[in-house]
Amino acid sequence: MNNYSKSTRNTVKRSAKRGYYDKETVYQILDAGYICHVGFTIDGQPYVIPQAYGREGDTIYLHGAVGNRMLKQLEKGIPVCVTVTHTDGIVLARSAMHHSFNYRSAVLFGTAHLVPDEQKEHALFVITEQIMPGRWGEVRTPNVQELKATKVLAMEIAEASAKIRTGPPKDDEADHELPIWAGVLPLQITSGEAIPDPDLRSKLPLPNSILQVK
Amino acid sequence: MNNYSKSTRNTVKRSAKRGYYDKETVYQILDAGYICHVGFTIDGQPYVIPQAYGREGDTIYLHGAVGNRMLKQLEKGIPVCVTVTHTDGIVLARSAMHHSFNYRSAVLFGTAHLVPDEQKEHALFVITEQIMPGRWGEVRTPNVQELKATKVLAMEIAEASAKIRTGPPKDDEADHELPIWAGVLPLQITSGEAIPDPDLRSKLPLPNSILQVK
Repeated sequence: MNNYSKSTRNTVKRSAKRGYYDKETVYQILDAGYICHVGFTIDGQPYVIPQAYGREGDTIYLHGAVGNRMLKQLEKGIPVCVTVTHTDGIVLARSAMHHSFNYRSAVLFGTAHLVPDEQKEHALFVITEQIMPGRWGEVRTPNVQELKATKVLAMEIAEASAKIRTGPPKDDEADHELPIWAGVLPLQITSGEAIPDPDLRSKLPLPNSILQVK
Repeated sequence: MNNYSKSTRNTVKRSAKRGYYDKETVYQILDAGYICHVGFTIDGQPYVIPQAYGREGDTIYLHGAVGNRMLKQLEKGIPVCVTVTHTDGIVLARSAMHHSFNYRSAVLFGTAHLVPDEQKEHALFVITEQIMPGRWGEVRTPNVQELKATKVLAMEIAEASAKIRTGPPKDDEADHELPIWAGVLPLQITSGEAIPDPDLRSKLPLPNSILQVK
């Protein structure tokens, strides 16, 4: 099954032609992200909290300290929405109203459950590899105390959709004659020069995980 | 009043020393953003939707087509959470568990209401200036039909907090002797070369708004 089923919850209504429901598109957006925004509701109040995450198949892993307030709520199996967004460009039109962004976003719906102890380390591997591919093999892996102090949840993606805008502005035909520059200013996340920890004991070379960042 | 009041809703519990409640810090994070994530709940289901926005004082403006499903819900005055996050760096520790991100996030709580017709154009000015400072003065401003087809909501920030992590990894003292590189890989959003609209009628120079982007 390579597509998510459509319901009123995940169907893209506005600019419906920008909506995608295939897993490949959703996965690509998720795998390119650093941070997701987790939405949940307590006593009618929605919360949107930025979080590190990891994806494996249709599972999203989230982690935190055992006392983490958000995880305590999600663990109950309440409805969750997880969104990952990339801002790819500023769309500059001739008219104010047609200004927009080029973007790729994935919106996921599901519920989360506690990851059992024996699968915790694997889930943390997935999260660490999402933060920095190849890093897990370079570092000290979690010890018993650290695993005990950490809670990991898994959210199975029950429904999802992606929404993508690309390309130039869509001005009214009549506006094309106006002497106003229009086009796209591309945006991307770039990495700067790595800053060594001031506590580094010896001169160590940059790790492969950093050297491989595009 | 330069601080938001604290309640259970906006008080940062986890890593409480990273929490800020002053308006200056919250405003700086909001003003540096392109996209916010809007959280709302319908029939117990939370939704997290990426959106353009504009800030003026403690007001967040959101806009869309009059038929926009999200705006129709928010207009009812339901509780809303708006979050803006900047991912500033990957924190690479010697131990897997201490990997993290440097980030700045602002989480806002409030309710939204419809912006009356006579204030709509001003609100769209604020949103356009958030997308690209100085752009409003370069473009064709909205006409009567466009204003009619557009809905603008204003959310007053009732409560808010910011959370900021900066600096090097925080490894256990015992791990400092490990021969593992640790530090921070800074991340930032950078703009690429502007792409002119293929429909540009004449060779127009790049506008000041683009030339002024850092």
